[in-house]
Amino acid sequence: MSSPVGADDTPLNNNVGAVASKRVQFSAPLQLQSGAILPAFDLAVETYGTLNAAKSNAILVCHALSGHQHVAGFRADNANDIGWWDNIVGAGRPLDTDKYFIVGLNNLGGCHGSSGPSSINAASGKPWGADFPVVTVSDWVAAQARLADTFGIDAWAAVIGGSLGGMQALQWTLDFPQRVRGALVIAAAPKLSAENIAFNDVARQAILTDPDFHGGHYYAHNVVPLRGLRLARMLGHITYLSDDQMAEKFGRRTRAGAGSYGFDVEFEVESYLRHQGDKFAGVFDANTYLRMTKALDYFDPAAEFDDDLAAALARATAQFLIVSFTTDWRFPPARSREMVNALVKNGQPVVYSEIECAHGHDSFLMDDAHYHAVVRSFLKRVGT
Amino acid sequence: MSSPVGADDTPLNNNVGAVASKRVQFSAPLQLQSGAILPAFDLAVETYGTLNAAKSNAILVCHALSGHQHVAGFRADNANDIGWWDNIVGAGRPLDTDKYFIVGLNNLGGCHGSSGPSSINAASGKPWGADFPVVTVSDWVAAQARLADTFGIDAWAAVIGGSLGGMQALQWTLDFPQRVRGALVIAAAPKLSAENIAFNDVARQAILTDPDFHGGHYYAHNVVPLRGLRLARMLGHITYLSDDQMAEKFGRRTRAGAGSYGFDVEFEVESYLRHQGDKFAGVFDANTYLRMTKALDYFDPAAEFDDDLAAALARATAQFLIVSFTTDWRFPPARSREMVNALVKNGQPVVYSEIECAHGHDSFLMDDAHYHAVVRSFLKRVGT
Repeated sequence: MSSPVGADDTPLNNNVGAVASKRVQFSAPLQLQSGAILPAFDLAVETYGTLNAAKSNAILVCHALSGHQHVAGFRADNANDIGWWDNIVGAGRPLDTDKYFIVGLNNLGGCHGSSGPSSINAASGKPWGADFPVVTVSDWVAAQARLADTFGIDAWAAVIGGSLGGMQALQWTLDFPQRVRGALVIAAAPKLSAENIAFNDVARQAILTDPDFHGGHYYAHNVVPLRGLRLARMLGHITYLSDDQMAEKFGRRTRAGAGSYGFDVEFEVESYLRHQGDKFAGVFDANTYLRMTKALDYFDPAAEFDDDLAAALARATAQFLIVSFTTDWRFPPARSREMVNALVKNGQPVVYSEIECAHGHDSFLMDDAHYHAVVRSFLKRVGT
Repeated sequence: MSSPVGADDTPLNNNVGAVASKRVQFSAPLQLQSGAILPAFDLAVETYGTLNAAKSNAILVCHALSGHQHVAGFRADNANDIGWWDNIVGAGRPLDTDKYFIVGLNNLGGCHGSSGPSSINAASGKPWGADFPVVTVSDWVAAQARLADTFGIDAWAAVIGGSLGGMQALQWTLDFPQRVRGALVIAAAPKLSAENIAFNDVARQAILTDPDFHGGHYYAHNVVPLRGLRLARMLGHITYLSDDQMAEKFGRRTRAGAGSYGFDVEFEVESYLRHQGDKFAGVFDANTYLRMTKALDYFDPAAEFDDDLAAALARATAQFLIVSFTTDWRFPPARSREMVNALVKNGQPVVYSEIECAHGHDSFLMDDAHYHAVVRSFLKRVGT
């Protein structure tokens, strides 16, 4: 890998500068949890910083539902396209590019350059569409392990992620205990609740019942299920923000044209949600969305241990940092504490931080000084 | 009115027996808050019990988003069609048909026999569709006042409702202070939060963007926006239940066929939601749903008092019972306390009860002994 991680050319925000994604090809078949086999696959990857000679300073950043490999910096061809977690990566930042070699990727099934429903199925010469298999968190970890191999990385200094990304960090400690020294499981849960699954199912039904979905083979019809994906994203945004934050950000403020006694935008919050929905539906792939939510639903490492999470986590040898945010109602602190309690029960090394932050589930993406200090301190303990 | 309220012929559950709805016609125009004028309108009504000579024992039951006039008893032609709040109405029950004359109606804009988008617009001879005006809580109260007039009821002993029904009870005390002695405002809020509006907007967008919506004139196309209405209802149900209740009722339990790595029903909660969505979409009118949610969004009696709720409620002369439920996250107890605090500030008579009940927002429909005792006791204080 030779992603062009430049020196910090924007001192004011100290970011990693211009970056470019690279596609890494894997030609050996990958057996998925579903039983399906991917004969070959690509992963879109970005890296920042330099891998040391011992290859011991690598940090893997796992993305959540809508993320991808572009974690930090800006794209050489579009300075406005800043990575989704830029605030935590860079010289002097918690994921310090002066110390660490940071790897971001787009997961299998994604729509940002990795093999997924919208990429070409070599067997047919057409987009996979509905034929792209459902992938799980374990499948992602397996693919990420292959990626580590290409770098010659035996063990990650750390695997970090928020939300669904945190679940991957946890799964790494279970599937490859010897290959991860530190796991940063942020704003996550050891499994979804019924309510979590319910929200996902409404989102999926919005997509699946959109007449433009065509059973997932919409590419062949030159349409995309925009309506369904837009609704899914609108709904998602409600669960990402806290009630208080929404109250503060929007309250009952109205826009010009309010009081029209019609169904156009009247309240600010409507405008925000519709805008978020439109923006997302224009760039994201609906088949990917379906698969990401299904990976969330299926994630449940304790299931094969009779719901005993401590038993499930016993094989992990990593040090853990579990972080939750007080206003997160998608995966509230109680869900993080389940993991902490299981690890403590086992006598496994764990640091837990419950952070006061007003931004709901999205807090994990925020540039919060306390939060970043916690991450920095944990990584120092893990070492390079 | 002469709704056939029979003697209690089912002693075991002590209900009001067979009932029938009646349509009451109003020929005088009704000026709506939007400025629109309804030249005439019908209200579908049921009554239980007997109006006393002084006409002082009447209780109005206001319905929430999906309710109607069939509050109690069973329909003569369908013994399985029990009223939606049957458990609280009947001889010996809190809304005691031996003491009170109970009136249920379908609100203006509804789809159960009252004038609404699916009823015929006399001016065109066709269903109103999108041309039926948006109605507000105040508009409903105005129509309900006309209904009281037809009975010769000067003042209701009480107006009672849960959720959106509770908002009508509150509005009665403001629009017609002299015409209501007791207001039972249950599981309600003095106005929606940004999050509440956000959920409503996603539901509306699901309907409005359904290709079968046809701008609200779908009747003419012989289709209904089933997909959108189904999604709206699925989403609604998530907000009606508590997280804990969902966990207890469904958890992560799966159905036969789970683990299929596809998008058919796998988890019990998916099955429940889809079933609720399908059932509702088959019987409810999408244009009505749009209007009910809009009435919720607009409700905000303090708005014209510079957000001073106490100032807004000062003109009420009724006694108030405010009830909230601990697990209700749609309108949590804090929202009820806003009303209580405003009334207390004004020195107005108010009883507040915050009831431990596991059923989330739907608790207001439950046959909970403590809850029913609170209602009974308040009504005793109000008198007949």
